[in-house]
Amino acid sequence: MEVRVPSDIEIAQSAKLKPIMDIAKDWGIEEDEVELYGKYKAKISLDIFKRLKDKPNGKLILVTAINPTPAGEGKSTTTVGLGQALNKIGKKAIIALREPSLGPVFGVKGGAAGGGYAQVVPMEDINLHFTGDMHAITAAHNLVSAAIDNHIHQGNTLGIDPRQIVWKRVLDMNDRALRQIVVGLGGKANGFPREDGFMITVASEVMAALCLASDLMDLKERFARMVVAYTYDGKPVTIRDLNVQGAMAVLMKDAIKPNLVQTLENTPALIHGGPFANIAHGANSIIATKLGLKLADYLVTEAGFGADLGAEKFFDIVCRYAGFRPDAVVIVATIRALKMHGGVAKQDLSKENLEALEKGFENLERHVENVRKFGLPVLVAINRFVSDTEAEIELLHKLCQKINVEVSLNEVWAKGGEGGIDMANKLVNLVENNKPNFNYLYDINLSIVEKVNKIAKEIYRANGATFTAQAMKQVQKIEELGLDKLPICMAKTQYSFSDNPSLLGAPKDFDITVKEVRLSAGAGFIVVLTGDIMTMPGLPKVPAAEKIDIDENGNIVGLF
Amino acid sequence: MEVRVPSDIEIAQSAKLKPIMDIAKDWGIEEDEVELYGKYKAKISLDIFKRLKDKPNGKLILVTAINPTPAGEGKSTTTVGLGQALNKIGKKAIIALREPSLGPVFGVKGGAAGGGYAQVVPMEDINLHFTGDMHAITAAHNLVSAAIDNHIHQGNTLGIDPRQIVWKRVLDMNDRALRQIVVGLGGKANGFPREDGFMITVASEVMAALCLASDLMDLKERFARMVVAYTYDGKPVTIRDLNVQGAMAVLMKDAIKPNLVQTLENTPALIHGGPFANIAHGANSIIATKLGLKLADYLVTEAGFGADLGAEKFFDIVCRYAGFRPDAVVIVATIRALKMHGGVAKQDLSKENLEALEKGFENLERHVENVRKFGLPVLVAINRFVSDTEAEIELLHKLCQKINVEVSLNEVWAKGGEGGIDMANKLVNLVENNKPNFNYLYDINLSIVEKVNKIAKEIYRANGATFTAQAMKQVQKIEELGLDKLPICMAKTQYSFSDNPSLLGAPKDFDITVKEVRLSAGAGFIVVLTGDIMTMPGLPKVPAAEKIDIDENGNIVGLF
Repeated sequence: MEVRVPSDIEIAQSAKLKPIMDIAKDWGIEEDEVELYGKYKAKISLDIFKRLKDKPNGKLILVTAINPTPAGEGKSTTTVGLGQALNKIGKKAIIALREPSLGPVFGVKGGAAGGGYAQVVPMEDINLHFTGDMHAITAAHNLVSAAIDNHIHQGNTLGIDPRQIVWKRVLDMNDRALRQIVVGLGGKANGFPREDGFMITVASEVMAALCLASDLMDLKERFARMVVAYTYDGKPVTIRDLNVQGAMAVLMKDAIKPNLVQTLENTPALIHGGPFANIAHGANSIIATKLGLKLADYLVTEAGFGADLGAEKFFDIVCRYAGFRPDAVVIVATIRALKMHGGVAKQDLSKENLEALEKGFENLERHVENVRKFGLPVLVAINRFVSDTEAEIELLHKLCQKINVEVSLNEVWAKGGEGGIDMANKLVNLVENNKPNFNYLYDINLSIVEKVNKIAKEIYRANGATFTAQAMKQVQKIEELGLDKLPICMAKTQYSFSDNPSLLGAPKDFDITVKEVRLSAGAGFIVVLTGDIMTMPGLPKVPAAEKIDIDENGNIVGLF
Repeated sequence: MEVRVPSDIEIAQSAKLKPIMDIAKDWGIEEDEVELYGKYKAKISLDIFKRLKDKPNGKLILVTAINPTPAGEGKSTTTVGLGQALNKIGKKAIIALREPSLGPVFGVKGGAAGGGYAQVVPMEDINLHFTGDMHAITAAHNLVSAAIDNHIHQGNTLGIDPRQIVWKRVLDMNDRALRQIVVGLGGKANGFPREDGFMITVASEVMAALCLASDLMDLKERFARMVVAYTYDGKPVTIRDLNVQGAMAVLMKDAIKPNLVQTLENTPALIHGGPFANIAHGANSIIATKLGLKLADYLVTEAGFGADLGAEKFFDIVCRYAGFRPDAVVIVATIRALKMHGGVAKQDLSKENLEALEKGFENLERHVENVRKFGLPVLVAINRFVSDTEAEIELLHKLCQKINVEVSLNEVWAKGGEGGIDMANKLVNLVENNKPNFNYLYDINLSIVEKVNKIAKEIYRANGATFTAQAMKQVQKIEELGLDKLPICMAKTQYSFSDNPSLLGAPKDFDITVKEVRLSAGAGFIVVLTGDIMTMPGLPKVPAAEKIDIDENGNIVGLF
């Protein structure tokens, strides 16, 4: 008998959701602290932190992954499934995730919020406007752009050099035609012509700052510090100089409140903030994670890309700003993805290949070693596929045993929390029997070059980091401004430990080349770019938008 | 003793709001039909129309005005105050208003939602993101732009002429630098370079269509019909050709639901949609007005600009699409504004000037005559100022008597509903003692030139309308497409009956010059432009944004 597997959106639409107010109350949030957005979405007032001030925090679990491959690893699915499974075994668990961006929904993806029976819902809303956070960021960001051009138009008393404006505009749309543009055409009434461009909203420094801020006043101060341009004399121009940080904060007054939704099994999910994982740090807001820690025994969150980028930035940036001390780390992989790291082509992944698995395991092994450098216990979580053979599974167990790491194969995609009970039990066991000894990778007071070299050598296992002449000039500029004592935000390909996306597995004997160094003074980190990072995606030949539709009964098709 | 008059935002912030769910229930909306956005904002499900299908409609009252002057008339304040006053005298009244645009909040205005003790609240939210309708429109609109450039980039099988793309991008921001831009620069990966520009979101045809649609399926069909470009052969390219109308409808699935808030006196206010009053029709959504008519004895709505534009378009466009038959019209004026129409300069308005009042009254008189041409009874509503003298008031009464129109002086700004009881009583009297005999100004099947001439002659009192050669070419193009049997949407200066903003009062013996004719095939009207219409405002030297701020207790300053 052939079993038809329902699509993600079909599963999501058939879910039995609880009113979000009921979930909030069940989990210790008071009615007055809940701002409903329809029946199944809510924002939580930051006043709750005053009330819960003295409540001890739950355990903080970070879900990360091997270097992603086209085979797919299922990190978000694991995060959602793990949260569901923890609740199944009697632990109070909440998950925290990044908000999806609207733009890509119309491109290739058509939406994303976990998968199968490990999804967050209402899936359509989360993937569309949700509670308006992205739109608020777009507005706050573009207000700055309008203020910059208006300042120049009105006499330019600050002496802004139109060739040195580093603040681009943003739009939450995949729109390649906006990557490079010329604005201010049409004569005197329309301002001064200059080169400009649009990024997708999630690439905005406003987003990164939102996710690292402790409250609205801290966020406003971060806005004020943001460098938007340089003067003809080379001096930085900040948002404070333009005096619109207050208006930006007003625009962000609701966006700063974390959003509460639920998984298919009614596990609370805090979905708040979604910065890029390359030019930003790729983790949900500190506020959401803090709230989850106050409400749950276990707060499960995830970081973007593989552990070389996502986990390192979570530890060195997020934990540093928030004062978090994680309790354990889950590294997600699949046997198929490990085989790809071992050299197997995508079309051959369903064939058993023990040799490739053993070779590809080196990628996982290195991530395990890396996480342990931060003083944290590790669980390996494998998303099981029907093509995984008994021999492959046995080999994987052996390899994990060799490096003394616990491993669990799960089926949360197909079975929800039920499919992750072993994983949940092993995680609880790990947390209860290990005392984490969390430490950062580098001292914040090292120089930029030293910090980058430390990451390159200890995490990527490069021989070192080479800075281009341009990058060194940018480093010196930041040092002159006295802003070099900030954490590093590496922008590197996610596909490899190196800066070459085709070097899979565990490459050795390579250098990292730093091509550009940017200051995100408001977010509070220094972005180190090792390649060209695309901050505005395009649409494919047949965009997902063409398949998305809604009928007279409100049924949506084409998302996923 | 000097009395300090509190600012609009101070009054708004000290208001005692009722939970919007309570207001909804009090007014016959069921809990299941309410989608809360926090405690004081809600969207109402369109399912309510099925339940209320057989309920008779209330009376439809349109509030319009004389030609606006820098003296200010207070049309929205009157609309809000009239709604409050009707409830005070025991009539169940609901008001329907346009949603304010976010962009101008940061420019000169700093927000708008009535004034004094005749405001809608929560004022800050209504002026900021509200329930996200503007953002949804921005996204839906820009998805089309991305689809156009992507189509060209991916091979341009439709043969779109990049020089004949009529669909600009939009942003809800006052940003003059985006008026005229060049997109697609930077080489092959970024598409084809072409000229483009941004309008402010409320100028989008998506907004006009939202306000004229009967439901989401009708809106989707209007999207599909929208003409976005012409091919090299001169054939129209529609959104249906790009096949993104379904995705646009998905983006608009919540925006199509009317928003419910309240006035300072807890009168229900439906605030939904806010199209431009020049290149669009300048009235809130048909859906909101329809809902108000189902729920109230009196639904009070307003139209943009003076009656020559706003009321005419309300009758000939909105009423035609909705099947509305208004019951009475309120024309708002002030003695100060009438004196300006009579030739007094702004700084001299506080001095008594009976001669100027009598001369300026001609402007009001002509609007009264015009409204009567549509077969409707008229009430003149005067917003009272302390500078109005007894002699001026007496003269005004005499002048109104002469043309047999009822007049009421109100103080709703200073006293709320209490200050409008006379106005409310006179309106009820007018409605109960007059049988309206509503008719459109023109037959839809006349030619474009005939329809425009009818409006120019009968409403503006011009000798006629002259079309430039370019405009005539555009008329012929629309006739060739067979799309000329649509209502006309005049885009003319609001300050004068003529197309010359400095001709105040009741100008005679002039011609209207039509410079451009545009097709809004989706919204469903033909835009006739008599001058340059600015669709993207700029920021002033010191933008309101610099004064807007929020403190650690969430108190907002600088909005108004």
